[in-house]
Amino acid sequence: MDPAADLAQRREAQLDELFALLSIPSVSTDPQHAPDVRRAATHLSDFMRKVGLEHVALHETEGHPVVYGDWLHAPGGPTVLVYGHYDVQPADPLALWQSPPFEPTVRDGRIYARGATDDKGQMMMHLFVAQALIARGELRVNLRFLIEGEEEIGSVHLASFVASHKSLLAADYVIVSDSPMLRAGVPAICLGLRGLTALEFSLRTAGHDLHSGNFGGAVPNAAHELARIISGLHAPDGSVAVAGFYDGVKELSPDERSAFDRLDFSDAEFLAQAGALALVGESGRTTLERVWSRPTLEVNGMWSGFLGEGRKTVVPAVAEAKITCRLVPNQDPAAVAEAVAAHLRRSAPPWAELDVRIGAGDPAFLAPPHHPALAAARAALREAYGKDPDEIRMGGSIPVVTTFRSELGLPTLLMGFGLPDENLHAPNEHFSLDNFARGMLALWHFYQA
Amino acid sequence: MDPAADLAQRREAQLDELFALLSIPSVSTDPQHAPDVRRAATHLSDFMRKVGLEHVALHETEGHPVVYGDWLHAPGGPTVLVYGHYDVQPADPLALWQSPPFEPTVRDGRIYARGATDDKGQMMMHLFVAQALIARGELRVNLRFLIEGEEEIGSVHLASFVASHKSLLAADYVIVSDSPMLRAGVPAICLGLRGLTALEFSLRTAGHDLHSGNFGGAVPNAAHELARIISGLHAPDGSVAVAGFYDGVKELSPDERSAFDRLDFSDAEFLAQAGALALVGESGRTTLERVWSRPTLEVNGMWSGFLGEGRKTVVPAVAEAKITCRLVPNQDPAAVAEAVAAHLRRSAPPWAELDVRIGAGDPAFLAPPHHPALAAARAALREAYGKDPDEIRMGGSIPVVTTFRSELGLPTLLMGFGLPDENLHAPNEHFSLDNFARGMLALWHFYQA
Repeated sequence: MDPAADLAQRREAQLDELFALLSIPSVSTDPQHAPDVRRAATHLSDFMRKVGLEHVALHETEGHPVVYGDWLHAPGGPTVLVYGHYDVQPADPLALWQSPPFEPTVRDGRIYARGATDDKGQMMMHLFVAQALIARGELRVNLRFLIEGEEEIGSVHLASFVASHKSLLAADYVIVSDSPMLRAGVPAICLGLRGLTALEFSLRTAGHDLHSGNFGGAVPNAAHELARIISGLHAPDGSVAVAGFYDGVKELSPDERSAFDRLDFSDAEFLAQAGALALVGESGRTTLERVWSRPTLEVNGMWSGFLGEGRKTVVPAVAEAKITCRLVPNQDPAAVAEAVAAHLRRSAPPWAELDVRIGAGDPAFLAPPHHPALAAARAALREAYGKDPDEIRMGGSIPVVTTFRSELGLPTLLMGFGLPDENLHAPNEHFSLDNFARGMLALWHFYQA
Repeated sequence: MDPAADLAQRREAQLDELFALLSIPSVSTDPQHAPDVRRAATHLSDFMRKVGLEHVALHETEGHPVVYGDWLHAPGGPTVLVYGHYDVQPADPLALWQSPPFEPTVRDGRIYARGATDDKGQMMMHLFVAQALIARGELRVNLRFLIEGEEEIGSVHLASFVASHKSLLAADYVIVSDSPMLRAGVPAICLGLRGLTALEFSLRTAGHDLHSGNFGGAVPNAAHELARIISGLHAPDGSVAVAGFYDGVKELSPDERSAFDRLDFSDAEFLAQAGALALVGESGRTTLERVWSRPTLEVNGMWSGFLGEGRKTVVPAVAEAKITCRLVPNQDPAAVAEAVAAHLRRSAPPWAELDVRIGAGDPAFLAPPHHPALAAARAALREAYGKDPDEIRMGGSIPVVTTFRSELGLPTLLMGFGLPDENLHAPNEHFSLDNFARGMLALWHFYQA
């Protein structure tokens, strides 16, 4: 039976297995979901055993467990470390989902569920292909699976796990399917990732909210102060107005810039994918430059005062905001976070107590351009899709890519099958069944190369 | 038995009765509490019958009911319309209360409960004094009680009730106890109130929150836009930067200003009452000017993006804010709201959909300076407290005072017994037992005058 027919025959069982995993709300950022995160890990390890992997185990960390399993019976073949994550982003606001986030369902050729594309769906494709090739006796590479439960919270404990399990993870390179294609029908290899650094801060201007009649006009308002500080984080030209923020940032080379320009990328399509009213950002930059090669500072959330129904005539005493910055090569996450924190401290007025908390960060990534796995991946993708893959970058972060380089000395191949409009981190996340099928075909060829 | 001894003997029963009313969470702004609001109205009308009032009834409105009862057996005496309200502000944030907001308790000589001072406690004082004087056959004035359930939401249905019940409410003047004293031990009569106007607005920059990696840097961020708009509502000198906002605002006369300056008011005490880190506001104005005679614009609440625990790397698509403005004489609430709405429309960028909703408003109030009830009130307060009352203003609003003037042609006497640090509209609202006692003594003399 040819690979496509073999995979098609396994499709129903694969979807049952994937849906079972998607049904578990493994939201790693929320302590209330910790039992669900563990349940997902256990479920995944049970499936690894069904696949035929060995040394399957839940490795405890100080946070959520790491799931490991391997198949090392291809002497002479390369050893590939497959990385993925079984944790997901929070699903709120729930009201905006057309079907419940943890009740996976197929509509219009797409799997709808939190985690469908990021990353449960893509991660499971590797296990499904391994399952088929092991059953047929045709797996030509050694595989080690390392699936973590903390990607969405910055992979806080993975670096120490990797550092203390170097022999368990010994490999020739890492493969990750957690990056997008530029458009349906054209495969992609991702050569670069932005990094990330995170801060939260709160302002307090009084012991508690004050009556706006009795005190309004004579006391500070925490909401006003927060608004003033946030509005000062960007300059009118769209750049980040934080001293030191751009330290070390390199401009694109002429070659890199023209490679960006040759891609079949459309601002109008990107705008439609975003569902935004306009594209805005640093002036004088193309959209791909803005999202692939320029650092950003975004408020992810903020609040102050009364948020309930109706009105409440208070002068708010407290205001809070969460910030993340996307980083590009040569920016140091800790230095950027400290530059932002220093800016916040300079911006806060003397009548506000400021509390800044700096979170975990990781630097940006650029792939080594001439690695042999890149050529193999190009060929496998061409065979499955009938087209040369785009060579793209990704505006998001995969924190562990840095860890693999620094701890294991391994390069990472980013071969993802997501589409840019699949609502990652948003309501109605979904994953294309066509890419689920063609992507597995590509992995089939890749793991036989 | 002298008045003080008579009242002291009734104290335990009065507190039982007051606590029963304070235990009902009659939060008028929250639809979920509508049954509680009605329960409070029924409870209050039952008590009015115990007091010995007649024509006691719940009058239905399109919102919460009005409670009415009267005692008209003092021929030749003046008829006083006693106004109060049985609804309360929301109690959140609940976590900041030292005892639950709807489980009244006495600590350190104070009654702690939502509504203790605003206004259940002060309103019930009139009923308790009426109860005692009726029982003794010593009530010398005719009393009509009009107690509403929508004061905290702008008295939205009271004006039409008053307009359609003019003969039921016929009186010589109105008395209200819902205003503060300047300090403990010194009684006060309030000669002016600020008005109020309210708006809410929301901004939308995309169909839903976007992944900050895939889109960040190239799409608008609703939180940033909201912050920019809010930070533009005030000028660096603390004034409101909205065109037309100050239209019609009169400066204080030299006499008014020196009357303010003669009061025993301390910025340091006011700051301590506020629990703020500093006093700020329009430059070149004293604190009393700022809170009594100048209009304000305050954001009461705002939010955008992810508010949950942990981090969520989104570019927020929606941001919302609630605003109220405190108004002074000669400002038109609707005109001010429209000026603010127009400013918001001018401030919103083309890539944000703006939705502005204007709420109910009411204008400011100044008392007629030579009304005979003022003299009677001064004498009664002097007798109860042993001191001349302060003549003050109040930064808050009592919307119905305007209605009484426009619909019934009646002046309103504002004789309140609250203290400025009693946490109105905030956690740990309380009411002084000493003012509860001395205030009733003052009302006793007043209702025998």
